[in-house]
Amino acid sequence: MPRFALELEYDGGGFVGWQRQRVGVSVQAVLERAASRLVGGAPTVSVAAGRTDAGVHAAAMVVQLDLDRDIAPDRLRDALNFHMRPHAVAVLRAASAPPNWNARFSAIERAYLYRIVNRDARPVLDGCRVWHVREPLDAEAMHRAARSLVGRHDFTSFRATSCQARSPVRTLDVLDVVRHGAVIDITVIARSFLHHQVRNIAGSLKLVGVGRWPVARVAEALAARRRDAAGPTAPAQGLCLTGVTYLISPFT
Amino acid sequence: MPRFALELEYDGGGFVGWQRQRVGVSVQAVLERAASRLVGGAPTVSVAAGRTDAGVHAAAMVVQLDLDRDIAPDRLRDALNFHMRPHAVAVLRAASAPPNWNARFSAIERAYLYRIVNRDARPVLDGCRVWHVREPLDAEAMHRAARSLVGRHDFTSFRATSCQARSPVRTLDVLDVVRHGAVIDITVIARSFLHHQVRNIAGSLKLVGVGRWPVARVAEALAARRRDAAGPTAPAQGLCLTGVTYLISPFT
Repeated sequence: MPRFALELEYDGGGFVGWQRQRVGVSVQAVLERAASRLVGGAPTVSVAAGRTDAGVHAAAMVVQLDLDRDIAPDRLRDALNFHMRPHAVAVLRAASAPPNWNARFSAIERAYLYRIVNRDARPVLDGCRVWHVREPLDAEAMHRAARSLVGRHDFTSFRATSCQARSPVRTLDVLDVVRHGAVIDITVIARSFLHHQVRNIAGSLKLVGVGRWPVARVAEALAARRRDAAGPTAPAQGLCLTGVTYLISPFT
Repeated sequence: MPRFALELEYDGGGFVGWQRQRVGVSVQAVLERAASRLVGGAPTVSVAAGRTDAGVHAAAMVVQLDLDRDIAPDRLRDALNFHMRPHAVAVLRAASAPPNWNARFSAIERAYLYRIVNRDARPVLDGCRVWHVREPLDAEAMHRAARSLVGRHDFTSFRATSCQARSPVRTLDVLDVVRHGAVIDITVIARSFLHHQVRNIAGSLKLVGVGRWPVARVAEALAARRRDAAGPTAPAQGLCLTGVTYLISPFT
């Protein structure tokens, strides 16, 4: 059964998330329904590098798709894009993948961007893609606080209480907070993430930014290993999966 | 009569352009209607640094607004934003302006960004803000062709036949074409522009990018001083006014 690697862009606003749900439109369902039409209606199975939540966007999600017949990757990309319309999801790249390649388990790095627009006026150009915070944020203090989360830690305080991962230990390779004018970008890179981890980190850093938390409080929240020690979950719409890395990229 | 300087962001998609029209919603009408409500219903008058066309966006348009009474600039900003909802326009900054300052005539520089997404898949995250071009574009060739338009020239070939400016001579200070992945950004800066000038330049450079025109053809089109010597007008949605410069900024 030929396996394909797909790179997807989607606007999370119209989806219940990547994963199929009993109710609502998921990216996975839209993709698999389109793929089924290419193989005479047979059900198809896809696996994503990560399961983004409802409202979370992707600029470059990687997905594997198994089909019961071979097809030229560029034709697959175009046919999927045709059948997925008008949903806000597009296949940017498609490639034949080796059978032992797995979009989820072969991934060695995921990168996310959490974007805040920090000003009085609501954002009208990027309104659906950012978290609008009116109170002035001290991005340098946020960045200093973020330092304490980089590296290998027990992130119990920053994972959803419903998180099903067996271990709460994760290793953050990058966690940077950078301001460009009114925009504050939080860049996060790790091999893998816990449920809501990035949004809970963003929600906590925001408390530092507005001065409600001293910088050191983020390290204390981490050490507490209790979800209620950290800040609230930042809104989904500010989050975007920006890339997935593999030792050998399927897109050569 | 107190004069205010306003910096506006708007999504051009929902407007017939900056300027009031007999039919359709203009940014100017939305702004002036909101301003009228602040002064008991009296009509108000605004003047913009430039008159963006239908569908053209602005990240930082500058507008002057005269009111028959004084008001704290931050309160003016917030009150206008309140009354302009739900239209996709927001006042980013407001300031008291000196009475001899004019948003249009005091401006010494306008900057525009024309953005192309150059790939097979349609853009679903920025779909309404870019021109989607599927054919591969040679951005370096486009940049070389653009060199011939920099400086002071008669831009008759690149202005709308309906353009009402007295002189077709303009001076382009910057015209750069830069590729970042699938995105091609055309940055243009000049004291002032002719009607459709940026979009006609973008439409011509695209012909160079796809190889239908040799690089030298853009200089020839300029020299011809005939609108039909240049390329077609690129779509409005790819264009965004990114800044207006004054000798003394009203926003200190």
